[in-house]
Amino acid sequence: MKTAIYPGSFDPITLGHLNIIKRAALCFDKLIVCVLVNSDKTSGLFLPEERADLIRKVVARLPNVEVDCSSTLLAEYAREKRACTLIKGLRAVSDYENEVQMALINRKLNPRLDTMFLPSSTKYTYISSSVVKEMARYGSDLSDFVPREIIDDVNRRMQEQRRDG
Amino acid sequence: MKTAIYPGSFDPITLGHLNIIKRAALCFDKLIVCVLVNSDKTSGLFLPEERADLIRKVVARLPNVEVDCSSTLLAEYAREKRACTLIKGLRAVSDYENEVQMALINRKLNPRLDTMFLPSSTKYTYISSSVVKEMARYGSDLSDFVPREIIDDVNRRMQEQRRDG
Amino acid sequence: MKTAIYPGSFDPITLGHLNIIKRAALCFDKLIVCVLVNSDKTSGLFLPEERADLIRKVVARLPNVEVDCSSTLLAEYAREKRACTLIKGLRAVSDYENEVQMALINRKLNPRLDTMFLPSSTKYTYISSSVVKEMARYGSDLSDFVPREIIDDVNRRMQEQRRDG
Amino acid sequence: MKTAIYPGSFDPITLGHLNIIKRAALCFDKLIVCVLVNSDKTSGLFLPEERADLIRKVVARLPNVEVDCSSTLLAEYAREKRACTLIKGLRAVSDYENEVQMALINRKLNPRLDTMFLPSSTKYTYISSSVVKEMARYGSDLSDFVPREIIDDVNRRMQEQRRDG
Amino acid sequence: MKTAIYPGSFDPITLGHLNIIKRAALCFDKLIVCVLVNSDKTSGLFLPEERADLIRKVVARLPNVEVDCSSTLLAEYAREKRACTLIKGLRAVSDYENEVQMALINRKLNPRLDTMFLPSSTKYTYISSSVVKEMARYGSDLSDFVPREIIDDVNRRMQEQRRDG
Amino acid sequence: MKTAIYPGSFDPITLGHLNIIKRAALCFDKLIVCVLVNSDKTSGLFLPEERADLIRKVVARLPNVEVDCSSTLLAEYAREKRACTLIKGLRAVSDYENEVQMALINRKLNPRLDTMFLPSSTKYTYISSSVVKEMARYGSDLSDFVPREIIDDVNRRMQEQRRDG
Repeated sequence: MKTAIYPGSFDPITLGHLNIIKRAALCFDKLIVCVLVNSDKTSGLFLPEERADLIRKVVARLPNVEVDCSSTLLAEYAREKRACTLIKGLRAVSDYENEVQMALINRKLNPRLDTMFLPSSTKYTYISSSVVKEMARYGSDLSDFVPREIIDDVNRRMQEQRRDG
Repeated sequence: MKTAIYPGSFDPITLGHLNIIKRAALCFDKLIVCVLVNSDKTSGLFLPEERADLIRKVVARLPNVEVDCSSTLLAEYAREKRACTLIKGLRAVSDYENEVQMALINRKLNPRLDTMFLPSSTKYTYISSSVVKEMARYGSDLSDFVPREIIDDVNRRMQEQRRDG
Repeated sequence: MKTAIYPGSFDPITLGHLNIIKRAALCFDKLIVCVLVNSDKTSGLFLPEERADLIRKVVARLPNVEVDCSSTLLAEYAREKRACTLIKGLRAVSDYENEVQMALINRKLNPRLDTMFLPSSTKYTYISSSVVKEMARYGSDLSDFVPREIIDDVNRRMQEQRRDG
Repeated sequence: MKTAIYPGSFDPITLGHLNIIKRAALCFDKLIVCVLVNSDKTSGLFLPEERADLIRKVVARLPNVEVDCSSTLLAEYAREKRACTLIKGLRAVSDYENEVQMALINRKLNPRLDTMFLPSSTKYTYISSSVVKEMARYGSDLSDFVPREIIDDVNRRMQEQRRDG
Repeated sequence: MKTAIYPGSFDPITLGHLNIIKRAALCFDKLIVCVLVNSDKTSGLFLPEERADLIRKVVARLPNVEVDCSSTLLAEYAREKRACTLIKGLRAVSDYENEVQMALINRKLNPRLDTMFLPSSTKYTYISSSVVKEMARYGSDLSDFVPREIIDDVNRRMQEQRRDG
Repeated sequence: MKTAIYPGSFDPITLGHLNIIKRAALCFDKLIVCVLVNSDKTSGLFLPEERADLIRKVVARLPNVEVDCSSTLLAEYAREKRACTLIKGLRAVSDYENEVQMALINRKLNPRLDTMFLPSSTKYTYISSSVVKEMARYGSDLSDFVPREIIDDVNRRMQEQRRDG
């Protein structure tokens, strides 16, 4: 069974991420969407476990997609999961070079782990989690940016932050 | 069964191509290496069928790799083969953008056909078929550039061309 | 009155070109779409005057758009037309650098001539005249690639070429 | 009347910015130079209103140039001002891709708002506001970096910061 | 006597840096490896003087290589040292453009100071000081990343930080 | 003695080439400007020996600069000349990646041969030999493009070609 991992911070999941998930799920027997817990960047909009829950809502109907959180080194995590492929979505040429360096390091640390790149659908090249947060901050309609299942969650959290901050 | 296609002109197959083939063959149930017959560029070092034969020599021990030639539009060829993934190796950032445009066109023509990109291994980023031909023209040792099974074929053809041209 | 020039080879005009024309026509009082006659590349699908006629068909309803052909140096042509802006559509980052070099040269030759860049709409980033010709060669449906007014012209010409060639 | 907006942080205005302002002012009936007030980055060298005042000093003789500050979402601000074009200066290829993503988002939020790109004059490609601040910190001569009208303002502010910090 | 300077933060020196040092030392009579002391980024893994000591350990056998620390503006420092060349290693295309802008500024400040670029050896393109720190944080083997002489220093410092932080 | 080689086609030498020659001549004891004779591209404006003569005219006052022609593989030629550095001028980011691949191949063929890159002066980024030929074709003033010593040679040759072609 071929397992691939789609790692990211997903704070929150966007329509661009969902597009990559659907496409990668067609190519592998199992796809694990993994929220990376980075000790340095604790100040997200959502906590890692909350981000995973939002993704679970969105991919509920995709039978071969699993959602997970991990603070393990990615190359190690892939070994545990017996996955031999990382999936990366590419929105821009300028992302590519950094991602290739990450891929080389991951392969160095785990020689059986390869990285495959999927270019974003042109409809979603302008969407990123930070754009979503910027839009939400100004109260813009999010339906072209995040899956409809999570629009209310994002808006609610944004209001809480505004009230508290 | 997940089938992927690795298309190219392969005139001739290089160590860089072979590296991509081996890595892609791990991720899919079947990989078809397809020599594209482009009516415009007839003047290669080898004829398309010869190129396919050289590839066959090289991948003989990879059980899930098939080699083929095709003059059909690639998006159409993939439909016939029931393949849903094209594999592209990327040697340089500057190749990426053109390849993404090709991927978008192929998807337009065959909505079930996606393209996945594999970055070259750093050991092979400087190798391309045209570099091989340039090296062969100067009589350089080809063992760092093409699979050893085909070194003699390349050198022999180069000598024939020199004699005839 | 602010006049801009949108130069190109337009062999033939695509939906991507038309998108740039419509957007540029909103920003200037007059827009001249100019088919550049390049003595080197005589072997197009259409003759320069034919290309201009196809564009005229397509922009008939845009009152401030003119269509022309020119074999004059572009910087000189702009001087004659009292235009101070060249419009360039950009489909890819990799086009950008070349275009900037062209812009610098044009400014060198005509210090009052500036170049403005419009990024392609994401819907059209994969369309170019050469893609259109490739699609037409394989008999693909062109309605997502060129304005509907000229689909028949392109297909007819393609058939003539196939018959004659 | 065609109105364009040239947005930025302008902390402070450089000779590169001034070059873009002069060129854009030739192409539009009115150009609004707009200092964007970004709630996140409060720690500039100058306050937004001060930056606008410095720009006003510099563009005093350009009759069709207005200077403004705004904390509104840019797409919304353009709607209020009935502007249909944003002007962006491009110093480097690597800026281009981000700017195109911003342009796509702005168009999404305001379908009548387009973005035009002007490449920096080669004389100014190495100048940015952060380079200016770096130069000023080391006490270098600023006359090749910022308009002469504001050199004293920048140096004076730098000295105040050094005294206070 | 031709003197070149190889500036950087070197926190810590990597195998990639060492490769550049060895290659540059072949081309110039004297090479000064200079640890730049940047007042803004005080929070490195090692203090600037410690970084210089680690470099000294590593280059002990290269007779024409000197190691230094400097908080002077680089263009000024080169003048003092009568050096007319800065050496920069390039790991990625995306580094190039920023480095060229730095080179232009340095030349502006010191017209006799030029910058030469050396592309990384492919073996080291994935290595940077921040990758080294990331690897050390996870306790990975560092022997493919930093010169063996300093592996213990890096691991020891990492443990101290973990204990204290 | 440190010898460097500046290879190219120089058809003809431009002000951009001359700028690189002067800068490289400051850094090495001897600089050999080498016109590469490429058997494929015979159809230049000038023959290789003529190009070398034009360069000789231009560099007459630079005592440590030699001019040569060679049809040998560059890595081999450098070995013969005991040169350990190739100099490459970079006008654009997009040139960089190809040049790095060439540098890797040259190093593969001659492990003691390194390549150093010098970014073009901003004044000359838009100048290339093909731009010069394009300008000459339209009869434009060449004084901003090629060294004054060769302007007449270029114009005269252009007229001969026009008469003959």
